[in-house]
Amino acid sequence: MKEVSIGLIGFGTVGAGVVKILQENRDVIEARIGFPLTLRRIADLDISSDRGISIDRSLLTTDSNEILEDPLIDIVVELIGGYEPAKTIILKAIDRGKQVVTANKALLADCGAEILGRAKRSGVDVAFEASVAGGIPILRSLREGLLANRFEKVLAILNGTCNFILTAMNENPGIPFQETLREAQSLGYAEADPSLDIDGTDTAHKLVLVLGLTHGIRAWTKDIYVEGIRAIDSFDVFMAREFSYKLKLLAVIIDHGKQVEARVHPTMLPENHLLANVDGVFNGIFLRGDMVGDQLFYGRGAGMEPTASAVVGDIVETARNIIRGGTGSLPPLGYPEIWNSDVSIMNMEQIVTNYYLRVQALDQPGVLSKIAGIMAEHCISIHSVVQKKRRISGAVPVVFLTHLAREADIQEACRKIGALDVVEDRPTIVRIEDETLA
Amino acid sequence: MKEVSIGLIGFGTVGAGVVKILQENRDVIEARIGFPLTLRRIADLDISSDRGISIDRSLLTTDSNEILEDPLIDIVVELIGGYEPAKTIILKAIDRGKQVVTANKALLADCGAEILGRAKRSGVDVAFEASVAGGIPILRSLREGLLANRFEKVLAILNGTCNFILTAMNENPGIPFQETLREAQSLGYAEADPSLDIDGTDTAHKLVLVLGLTHGIRAWTKDIYVEGIRAIDSFDVFMAREFSYKLKLLAVIIDHGKQVEARVHPTMLPENHLLANVDGVFNGIFLRGDMVGDQLFYGRGAGMEPTASAVVGDIVETARNIIRGGTGSLPPLGYPEIWNSDVSIMNMEQIVTNYYLRVQALDQPGVLSKIAGIMAEHCISIHSVVQKKRRISGAVPVVFLTHLAREADIQEACRKIGALDVVEDRPTIVRIEDETLA
Repeated sequence: MKEVSIGLIGFGTVGAGVVKILQENRDVIEARIGFPLTLRRIADLDISSDRGISIDRSLLTTDSNEILEDPLIDIVVELIGGYEPAKTIILKAIDRGKQVVTANKALLADCGAEILGRAKRSGVDVAFEASVAGGIPILRSLREGLLANRFEKVLAILNGTCNFILTAMNENPGIPFQETLREAQSLGYAEADPSLDIDGTDTAHKLVLVLGLTHGIRAWTKDIYVEGIRAIDSFDVFMAREFSYKLKLLAVIIDHGKQVEARVHPTMLPENHLLANVDGVFNGIFLRGDMVGDQLFYGRGAGMEPTASAVVGDIVETARNIIRGGTGSLPPLGYPEIWNSDVSIMNMEQIVTNYYLRVQALDQPGVLSKIAGIMAEHCISIHSVVQKKRRISGAVPVVFLTHLAREADIQEACRKIGALDVVEDRPTIVRIEDETLA
Repeated sequence: MKEVSIGLIGFGTVGAGVVKILQENRDVIEARIGFPLTLRRIADLDISSDRGISIDRSLLTTDSNEILEDPLIDIVVELIGGYEPAKTIILKAIDRGKQVVTANKALLADCGAEILGRAKRSGVDVAFEASVAGGIPILRSLREGLLANRFEKVLAILNGTCNFILTAMNENPGIPFQETLREAQSLGYAEADPSLDIDGTDTAHKLVLVLGLTHGIRAWTKDIYVEGIRAIDSFDVFMAREFSYKLKLLAVIIDHGKQVEARVHPTMLPENHLLANVDGVFNGIFLRGDMVGDQLFYGRGAGMEPTASAVVGDIVETARNIIRGGTGSLPPLGYPEIWNSDVSIMNMEQIVTNYYLRVQALDQPGVLSKIAGIMAEHCISIHSVVQKKRRISGAVPVVFLTHLAREADIQEACRKIGALDVVEDRPTIVRIEDETLA
């Protein structure tokens, strides 16, 4: 039987994980698929560092063209990450008729239409399971097992760094964000420059990819409302706990027919919600299909072996298509890149949800009435109010949970509340995902 | 582009769900896959009952041969269930070169080798995602996304009837099993004859199918240790709570290299275990892959739409293979039916786990010493003992949690303890799955 040959470009942590799996689990993988997989070549600028795995040094090259131009290589695995040279390498591989496997969420989110379009024209597949939620087979599940469903709602924890920090803050509500971030960095769970993770960009990239599968639209990251976790105040984490909520950075998709909400921001979740117990570096995806009902997928969203597990899963699926002779004969991995061009992303101002508002008010008679008056003016109905004892310099935190309200109304009310001379600063807003709070 | 034609045999609850999905979600399914699916014929002995869906009556027939002998039908969907005539129908379909989709766990568990072997020889696929965990795409995930892993452990709640009953008993530990069963029956969550569910047979059938994917072996249901939930005493549910455990009926797979544990029985799980919060009719699969680490899949394991969602997922995968021209060119759905014939199921007597033992002892001096003496004789080390206040007729329940012990030793010790004249009956045994309890 034909063997399938693989060229690996990018021999960093995940690349080393792929080599490790292909070595340590070769027996079980080949027994399961019934044909051999051969790792033919590995390209990286650094071919001298020790990756902790023994490897035939003759496989190594610093020149990715030795993989791209090798006619015997069937599948190119791109694990460099980032935009360039990853994009050029992937496009070259596609143009040469090679199948591509990648974990590159940033590139696919921003250039996915171009890459998948080119793949379709060249009749090859581009597989990218590892780009979302690491080892959890969520893209495959959306594309295959759950394909019969309309997706009414997806709530997902897709960034392990943010979830590690928020879990630590939830568990120790007194500790400020910066301190927790430093702890995450010292443990290796956050990068030296953590912006891509903590500002929500990484989660937004993944949301764009999920949205392609759930709603058949290719969104631009810039069209998605993104708010990271940098501004989270430990007082709000403490208050969340008082209301039996946990703070999580969520990617949110909510279907409204011709419009779909797609947003990324810190969110208060009831502590008995399935996602509320997805803690530490773990990822979780909660989804509601019109036929299948509620589902949860939970697992490791990053790290060497979990991500490499997803990459090898894609290598095998692609290899099976090669052996079957069915590669690329359908749209990329069986999905047209855009099939629902009449659906658009809802403007953030139009969304309707529940809100947590914290106002730093002066402790004077009539203040609450002024704030509540502005909220009433903007049709914001208050579910509960808590005023905690005085903290600093005469200002006390007053916390409101609202019934369902429109984002535009909340923003306008907060602008006016912030302008009151009895209020310090603009109120802090945290959105709430609680179906019991109408 | 070619269309793919489907014949449905068995128009019960799930069959009606499949028709409903193909009607209501046709637009989104066809947009996703890029080609049309046609439901060409529906066979059932009863073609007059109202299924609550409007259907062209000319599609209906009472003769399944009108589907099996129709050369235009590509995929036969068998949703009759049970052994016959389902088996004959599936084999006929295979012999005529038709692809098969089924949700029939009992038939596949007991005759899977024959059916999948015949499919392989005929070059057709047999898809059966809906047979395990309803709408949760677990078989597909094991077969594709997680294929790079050795599976060290699988713990699964696979029967919604049992989980509904046990959840109710956990929540109201005073209510006896029979009463909870009657409630489940009145709500439609348990059959009039509930044996297949509550005796664990249904879970064992599903375990056999999962084991085929995780370990490449085709086990016989009779080789698997199966204990249902009929004998569960509400006192033990109450005691579980005292120890912060919840009682669940689990399918357990634990890998030991050349041997694998495969067993079905009521199990005490720590209440903070991911599976402990899979409640009501929901199913959950916890698995540990050597590369991917811990994962959880959660969702509806039964019911019209969730099961039909999985059936339609399989129809689409099979249809894609037809369109690609790759059907059956690999072993059934990409998996040889047996690839690991040197692995065997561990004899139940050899397993090592933690145990809950309840002894009904007479309230006399020296009783505890006699019981503990027998346990020591059999190398059973006691983790904790609780003696609750007297219940009835002089006998008091004494509960032991053990450190890791061998099943054979536990059984022998229980036989001897049960024979003591100060003890009523043989002790009640419940196995515990708690990794913190060495």
